[in-house]
Amino acid sequence: MTAGPTPLPPRVQAALAEPIVYHRAPAFDALFARVLARLPMVFQTSNDVIVLTCSGSGAMDSAFANLVRPGQPVLACAAGKFGERWIELGEAYGADLVRYEPGWGTRLDPAVIDGLLTDRPEIKVAFATLSETSTGIVHDIEAIAAVAKQHDVILVVDAVSGLGAADLAQDAWGVDVVVTGSQKALMTPPGLGLVSASPRALEFAADQPGGRYYFDWAMAMKEQRKSSPATPFTPAVSLIAALDAALAMIEEEGFAQTLARHALLARATRAGVLAMGLGLYGDPDERANVVTAVALPETIDGGKVPGILRDTYGITANGGQGELKGRIVRIAHCGYFGAFDIITSLSGLEMTLAQLGAEIDLGAGVGAASQIFLDAGVNATASA
Amino acid sequence: MTAGPTPLPPRVQAALAEPIVYHRAPAFDALFARVLARLPMVFQTSNDVIVLTCSGSGAMDSAFANLVRPGQPVLACAAGKFGERWIELGEAYGADLVRYEPGWGTRLDPAVIDGLLTDRPEIKVAFATLSETSTGIVHDIEAIAAVAKQHDVILVVDAVSGLGAADLAQDAWGVDVVVTGSQKALMTPPGLGLVSASPRALEFAADQPGGRYYFDWAMAMKEQRKSSPATPFTPAVSLIAALDAALAMIEEEGFAQTLARHALLARATRAGVLAMGLGLYGDPDERANVVTAVALPETIDGGKVPGILRDTYGITANGGQGELKGRIVRIAHCGYFGAFDIITSLSGLEMTLAQLGAEIDLGAGVGAASQIFLDAGVNATASA
Repeated sequence: MTAGPTPLPPRVQAALAEPIVYHRAPAFDALFARVLARLPMVFQTSNDVIVLTCSGSGAMDSAFANLVRPGQPVLACAAGKFGERWIELGEAYGADLVRYEPGWGTRLDPAVIDGLLTDRPEIKVAFATLSETSTGIVHDIEAIAAVAKQHDVILVVDAVSGLGAADLAQDAWGVDVVVTGSQKALMTPPGLGLVSASPRALEFAADQPGGRYYFDWAMAMKEQRKSSPATPFTPAVSLIAALDAALAMIEEEGFAQTLARHALLARATRAGVLAMGLGLYGDPDERANVVTAVALPETIDGGKVPGILRDTYGITANGGQGELKGRIVRIAHCGYFGAFDIITSLSGLEMTLAQLGAEIDLGAGVGAASQIFLDAGVNATASA
Repeated sequence: MTAGPTPLPPRVQAALAEPIVYHRAPAFDALFARVLARLPMVFQTSNDVIVLTCSGSGAMDSAFANLVRPGQPVLACAAGKFGERWIELGEAYGADLVRYEPGWGTRLDPAVIDGLLTDRPEIKVAFATLSETSTGIVHDIEAIAAVAKQHDVILVVDAVSGLGAADLAQDAWGVDVVVTGSQKALMTPPGLGLVSASPRALEFAADQPGGRYYFDWAMAMKEQRKSSPATPFTPAVSLIAALDAALAMIEEEGFAQTLARHALLARATRAGVLAMGLGLYGDPDERANVVTAVALPETIDGGKVPGILRDTYGITANGGQGELKGRIVRIAHCGYFGAFDIITSLSGLEMTLAQLGAEIDLGAGVGAASQIFLDAGVNATASA
């Protein structure tokens, strides 16, 4: 039930347990070439996707290392904990930071972004989040990208928690840079950072050389584009083998179907939560396909929900982070999840809330979710 | 036979294949606490060791990010491909670089380092390498650390390929910072960077805040020192589980015995190579316990050796890198290796050289190595 690292499919676990492959041997070349060929599918791009050995936050760091110099004006949008990471990065690297913070649980407003970029035409790079895991909100990246394009601004999107669960058509929407990690919808353990940068973004980075080494995109690209694709530094070979297995599963399911499955799981979750008489936190809509933030009743001690779910029902769940501590519980449906994972989560939540004294009609949430799955047909509910 | 990633023990592979643990759940807390408690053993230190999700080069990058600012004078020592990485880092980050490059295959001379630090008393940080994988040389870090101490200079040692195979008594020798990766003597897949920084080095870093985020040591230390140790960013949990299993094996073998096993494997390898009538490349001595660089006969096409070993004998081996291409082959004995891995390597090398037309007395190298193992007793030759 957590928003990541998400459960591993048995096939991915089996790939992890394979004997280690030497990263400069032909067996690895073939594996890595296959991964590089498959990655553009999940980014919906024709860019070569850069594979870094780091977590998703390392991939975010690489965007600053390659695109931003101290004193350079940038726009950072944040409406939750992960958006705030862009602000922390801007502060750490001494950027001239324009902050857009409409508040947790709010959707970023493209019109406000338009205004901020109009006020500060010297801004060349902007940062936003696809799925804000802390609140469940999926932002309207398509509209934000259109605004960025009007201002000739490079848009960098943190899709660490969203890519592969929420739609992000990088090329069609004109998003310059998308960064993600391996451990969410990509069903791989954490430890790989992925960056899809447009030719324009790569040129922009090349115009600001130096100040980076391990995270240098050009260095990675040069190695990846060799006839035997390589990496400048020893890569996490076992995680790349796992990613290969996971991408094969997504390819077999069909990426459009992967997105549709996540949409269905999210729809069933929302229906279940509402049928339990609970609210959805913030301003979620039909794009909120990664994690559902459930507003807990004020009559109960919400801080106890994750502990009871874990200790009594064996369900690992996320409560609220930061200012939402004790006020929400989050049901993830991102990655290797199927209908009965949602049923289990809702059922466990029903019992937990009843145990804490909330008025809950046991089975109501589960029933509403089941109705959604039933209407959609069994095939659509199978996990990858 | 490659110098890393090295083979995984079955127990480490099994740990990798375990279901993924959520990094903010009690099960991970206990695992991570165990790893943090065991790591100082291999660094021979009382420092808390920082665990980063990155490869060894990322840990090297973190030393620059935390200790060096643009324009700051630093000394970088390089006598091979991996030493040159310090120089590349210095150039990338715009340090005022004093380079000490005595040439590949040479041992770094502490007296020369003393002279360089005397000439440039404004140097506060120096960089060196424990085991230079490209040449097989293990540098005299004990003597270099003594020189650095005299000049009140912070010494940073790249022990990526050496830690756990060659002796490095961090606290006893007074080495301020040691960085390594998970994939060599630590018998874990690549993807974890480890940093042991002395209190003095951490203070020096704290005096130069900003300019780093993902690799910030203080941020990592703050999370690791919580009552439930954590990481600032999602860690590579499956690799940490693997490292836990590997450290348990080292603990069971006894770390002194781990070092003694590596010394024995290296001694047998050197004896075998010499008995085959081949030379040892460069200036190796009894410290060269990580990888043995074998000088190939000039009468054969040395560039063909790794390919024949791989395709005919199923042995993955490293040839020379950079200027040593075709001139050497390297036999690794670092990590999960025992006596019969050395016997296999030497036997495969004998047949390969014979196939290429060299005058080789088949069995001579294997025999000499066997004599070393026999003299040492069977127990000392068992792999971990």
